[in-house]
Amino acid sequence: MKVTVNRKSHFNAAHRLYNADWSDARNAMVFGKCANPHYHGHNYDLTVSVTGEIHPDTGFVMDMKVLKKIIEEEVEEAFDHKNLNEEVPEFATLNPTAENIAVVIYNKLKPKLDSDLVLSITLYETARNYVVYSGT
Amino acid sequence: MKVTVNRKSHFNAAHRLYNADWSDARNAMVFGKCANPHYHGHNYDLTVSVTGEIHPDTGFVMDMKVLKKIIEEEVEEAFDHKNLNEEVPEFATLNPTAENIAVVIYNKLKPKLDSDLVLSITLYETARNYVVYSGT
Amino acid sequence: MKVTVNRKSHFNAAHRLYNADWSDARNAMVFGKCANPHYHGHNYDLTVSVTGEIHPDTGFVMDMKVLKKIIEEEVEEAFDHKNLNEEVPEFATLNPTAENIAVVIYNKLKPKLDSDLVLSITLYETARNYVVYSGT
Amino acid sequence: MKVTVNRKSHFNAAHRLYNADWSDARNAMVFGKCANPHYHGHNYDLTVSVTGEIHPDTGFVMDMKVLKKIIEEEVEEAFDHKNLNEEVPEFATLNPTAENIAVVIYNKLKPKLDSDLVLSITLYETARNYVVYSGT
Amino acid sequence: MKVTVNRKSHFNAAHRLYNADWSDARNAMVFGKCANPHYHGHNYDLTVSVTGEIHPDTGFVMDMKVLKKIIEEEVEEAFDHKNLNEEVPEFATLNPTAENIAVVIYNKLKPKLDSDLVLSITLYETARNYVVYSGT
Amino acid sequence: MKVTVNRKSHFNAAHRLYNADWSDARNAMVFGKCANPHYHGHNYDLTVSVTGEIHPDTGFVMDMKVLKKIIEEEVEEAFDHKNLNEEVPEFATLNPTAENIAVVIYNKLKPKLDSDLVLSITLYETARNYVVYSGT
Repeated sequence: MKVTVNRKSHFNAAHRLYNADWSDARNAMVFGKCANPHYHGHNYDLTVSVTGEIHPDTGFVMDMKVLKKIIEEEVEEAFDHKNLNEEVPEFATLNPTAENIAVVIYNKLKPKLDSDLVLSITLYETARNYVVYSGT
Repeated sequence: MKVTVNRKSHFNAAHRLYNADWSDARNAMVFGKCANPHYHGHNYDLTVSVTGEIHPDTGFVMDMKVLKKIIEEEVEEAFDHKNLNEEVPEFATLNPTAENIAVVIYNKLKPKLDSDLVLSITLYETARNYVVYSGT
Repeated sequence: MKVTVNRKSHFNAAHRLYNADWSDARNAMVFGKCANPHYHGHNYDLTVSVTGEIHPDTGFVMDMKVLKKIIEEEVEEAFDHKNLNEEVPEFATLNPTAENIAVVIYNKLKPKLDSDLVLSITLYETARNYVVYSGT
Repeated sequence: MKVTVNRKSHFNAAHRLYNADWSDARNAMVFGKCANPHYHGHNYDLTVSVTGEIHPDTGFVMDMKVLKKIIEEEVEEAFDHKNLNEEVPEFATLNPTAENIAVVIYNKLKPKLDSDLVLSITLYETARNYVVYSGT
Repeated sequence: MKVTVNRKSHFNAAHRLYNADWSDARNAMVFGKCANPHYHGHNYDLTVSVTGEIHPDTGFVMDMKVLKKIIEEEVEEAFDHKNLNEEVPEFATLNPTAENIAVVIYNKLKPKLDSDLVLSITLYETARNYVVYSGT
Repeated sequence: MKVTVNRKSHFNAAHRLYNADWSDARNAMVFGKCANPHYHGHNYDLTVSVTGEIHPDTGFVMDMKVLKKIIEEEVEEAFDHKNLNEEVPEFATLNPTAENIAVVIYNKLKPKLDSDLVLSITLYETARNYVVYSGT
């Protein structure tokens, strides 16, 4: 009896889209105003989804208080009120698109969960654009 | 040509998390303030998802008016403005976590639907925590 | 230059509507299923609105971190995961309708704010019903 | 490393549910007030979901600016502020249920996307009713 | 001690914007695609706000069950799944803009409420456009 | 017969909170992580509210297409995908708190509207914090 439990969180960050191998002109052409060298920013809304069996003793797939703490330590403390390009090591050479941010969050959270749990990451960059990554 | 149709509903209920095989101290340790013996409560938001072929005559997978009525009879009348632990027989000995409530709703609705329809239950316990159960 | 700053919060609680001066039959007639003696519950969504001048040094009407802490101490710690009728002294003899809960929250928060600030309370009991109280 | 990117859009349209092979009485019986010959209408909320590999140069599955433009040309210009039954050729003989609208949108968008991308359509007809179609 | 109680409702309707004293060309120029003679439609979201004293016996400004019934009878039955221009008498010669619909709803509800209660109408035509009318 | 019409918009921007007359230490103490010199960012959600008489010819307080264009020119083009501190002249010496951004938007929009219309600005900095400014 597998159930998916989902926990929402959020962080506010600055970023710009930028490929260091390209000229400024090509960055501007491909990424438009998202390439602004002075940065812009977003309220990122995150949903972390964990699928597994219900433990008969607790009725939980996993304790949401534990999941909340893992998200705080691995995501909120690392990303909230930060400049993703300048201050988050994972994006030193990786373009902080919503797609890549979702993959980085997945890779940070996966080792913190029991190995039999399945993880999926949903990340809203704006109210109209969001991405989903499930590890494959 | 399979389509999933989704119908939202809601109910307001009191509950507490509690394992009768445990001491009060262990219940308090595991479930925290959710174990409060005086109960607390939630506005539960429910999405019932039904997947099947589109009927060429109607353009419907199933008549949403029928699905709405099944949800009212099986879920809203049974759970709304109730104390889940005290008044809903399914939780007499089953801990009313969001996971278990979703499984109970699935088991109540499944026999009311045509057997070739696939059912999935999404249950929000709060705006930040929700679960999904699809029967396996 | 007066601006209203607004901070959202929430708490989950059990309650029942009940007038101790009335018979059970009259309580049931007036309050319907809200009078259920076993209680039901809600996710209450709260918006606290504070109106005042912008301080030229900070650009703030008041520090939202301070307002957040006042709401946590006065409202969340007092009401969250509680049974309002049984465990919150203000409702020992006061019927915990959304209207009365909003007045109680106003009266708890007003003395904690600078006296030149104007306070208003918005309380959602469900996604469809909410109340506003501004102190007069 | 497959990621799903999602773009939201919306259009406002009139429609009625109607099967031309049936009598008016049978249409009224099956479709209820949705069969009103004078039409009614909805704000349709659309989510277009596209799954594929992240391009290492851009960090994108596909450029959202391109997807936005395809949705505008294929869906918004064709459906927005239109009477679906009277003015949209796909529904000349096809009943414009949410299910059928989702299939039509899928069939219009699929040929505009790279063939290795997987498409899914989510369409809200009201805040409480929505459908999902993924092409099979 | 005055409190405002608010009740949300909704209806789905077709309409077009049209001034019968104008040429078709002028209607098209002023109202754009909203003048489409084949109609378009919306999910209208309505909030009815009623301000008054809290009754000490009930803790209510007014019984929300009563307000819900008045809204159903006066607004939902009259407007839901209707063509506003063709089927709702108030719009036979009045242009069904959001502004005018809000005024019509106000005028229908006001006589049904106790005369010491203050009424305000909020009407969302789309998620991005809404109007408020308070009777003066 | 005065009605308030409301139009929603949004922009994404980077900012930091900073008082140039203060030491870095005092900025950090007062503004916390919002003072991060590398900036962070937000999806700002804006509601522009305009109150006036309904024009009998159109049924409009003002043409929403005109209001939408004014907001695009005065707010979206000036603020979207910008660094408010570095790139928006109004914040060269003014701390870009939500309060001050709302006042700046009010001052930019007011001269573009007919002088008999009343303007109010609602600005969400996050889903939990928002401000309202009405010009006095």
